[in-house]
Amino acid sequence: MFSATTQIRVRYAETDQMRYVYYGNYPQYYEVGRAEAIRNLGFTYKQLEDLGVMMPVVEMSIRYFRPAFYDDLLTIKSSLHELPKSKVQFHHEIFNEKNELLNQGIVTLVFVDSTTMKRVDMPEVLHEKLSNFFNKEN
Amino acid sequence: MFSATTQIRVRYAETDQMRYVYYGNYPQYYEVGRAEAIRNLGFTYKQLEDLGVMMPVVEMSIRYFRPAFYDDLLTIKSSLHELPKSKVQFHHEIFNEKNELLNQGIVTLVFVDSTTMKRVDMPEVLHEKLSNFFNKEN
Amino acid sequence: MFSATTQIRVRYAETDQMRYVYYGNYPQYYEVGRAEAIRNLGFTYKQLEDLGVMMPVVEMSIRYFRPAFYDDLLTIKSSLHELPKSKVQFHHEIFNEKNELLNQGIVTLVFVDSTTMKRVDMPEVLHEKLSNFFNKEN
Amino acid sequence: MFSATTQIRVRYAETDQMRYVYYGNYPQYYEVGRAEAIRNLGFTYKQLEDLGVMMPVVEMSIRYFRPAFYDDLLTIKSSLHELPKSKVQFHHEIFNEKNELLNQGIVTLVFVDSTTMKRVDMPEVLHEKLSNFFNKEN
Repeated sequence: MFSATTQIRVRYAETDQMRYVYYGNYPQYYEVGRAEAIRNLGFTYKQLEDLGVMMPVVEMSIRYFRPAFYDDLLTIKSSLHELPKSKVQFHHEIFNEKNELLNQGIVTLVFVDSTTMKRVDMPEVLHEKLSNFFNKEN
Repeated sequence: MFSATTQIRVRYAETDQMRYVYYGNYPQYYEVGRAEAIRNLGFTYKQLEDLGVMMPVVEMSIRYFRPAFYDDLLTIKSSLHELPKSKVQFHHEIFNEKNELLNQGIVTLVFVDSTTMKRVDMPEVLHEKLSNFFNKEN
Repeated sequence: MFSATTQIRVRYAETDQMRYVYYGNYPQYYEVGRAEAIRNLGFTYKQLEDLGVMMPVVEMSIRYFRPAFYDDLLTIKSSLHELPKSKVQFHHEIFNEKNELLNQGIVTLVFVDSTTMKRVDMPEVLHEKLSNFFNKEN
Repeated sequence: MFSATTQIRVRYAETDQMRYVYYGNYPQYYEVGRAEAIRNLGFTYKQLEDLGVMMPVVEMSIRYFRPAFYDDLLTIKSSLHELPKSKVQFHHEIFNEKNELLNQGIVTLVFVDSTTMKRVDMPEVLHEKLSNFFNKEN
């Protein structure tokens, strides 16, 4: 398993008149979680795009347990439960400062060649970095 | 079944550097779909909040099939497959101008008393308006 | 003078916990105003980009007089006071349903060749369409 | 003069198909700059709202010099040139990692009693903390 955490502070813009963080902002927080998780590997999603591969999302599911509020310092935990091949499934969990689980999201992304717009396998550079975390059976 | 459609034009702000509508913007489009569906009943979500009831989202799942692009005129179809009681489950589908299905989202909301912050049943006013669509065989 | 109006309904996502539309969302509303103004000319900003010209913003100033609220149906008036050459200066005004002026924004954009990334003059196709509104005798 | 800096990393969601950060996202970055500047004083904007005072924006002007791109680590410098009384004027500057000035924004905010919705002077608690930075001639 590969796992990484990062922190984000809720912006005023992200609240709505319910005083909660708008439910549609969490996918953006998950994106930050993924970007920082990949950066932890010594690589960046930006570099991946520079190599001509982009990662559109094909599926997402979220369960919301508790709201986040303005100025909360949130912790985003982003994990891969298995080594990706042609799809990547990120498990995201967001916690508040009391360490309460606010929501849980599973986001599935694929790899697309940005020239042909066809799906491809995970680039070798990313496979190498990730396989260390899933090496038992290998 | 209760169903309603509305249209939305993609804003430049909603695209990302992949040239797609950012995956995290669709929950906002679904929100517009729900608001217009409720308006079609001769009622508004705003009026519901004025009555002291708000509807936070507790669950969402989305499947993304095709991207939307800048300036696309999208059709959002929002349906209830069953008469809600304490939860509402909206089925949203977004189509482009070629009538291609771009994505499908199921959003589950609950009713919360905005004073006590406790969950309540669907307000009577909304139940009355909706029950016409679900009465005969059920 | 060239002027056009369009309407927009405030989304829940666009409110903040002050119950107002977040001050940073108006530039997006102005963008919609400009896009619809150009569409009224029988042309679209999308077509402009397809021709290899894009229009980044170089300056903006906004005066906020009154807030907009959730579900308000806003009218955006977008005007050009003079025929653009290498810069376009859009004057935007947003009104609520009571016809109260909520805010006023002036947004200045330039034309950039999307291949060379150099500034260029307004494309001929747009000049032709606009010049009818600014002829000498009017 | 009172001045503070903070950093922000550009999210994918904040880019548009021009590959730039969307021009309408900078007001949100300035908001983060202000919130962190106030936190540096040993106080938070959240606490201000808890005291019953909120700070809507009444004026903003931005000059855009260079774009920001995805994953850029931006530095936001937020300064007060004079001790506020009934209005606060924040001067914001955003720099990229090469220390190039990307844009400059001046945002004017007022203090509003959140019960009466009437304008009030700057709360004493904030005045005390700020006056240390402007005390020479006073």
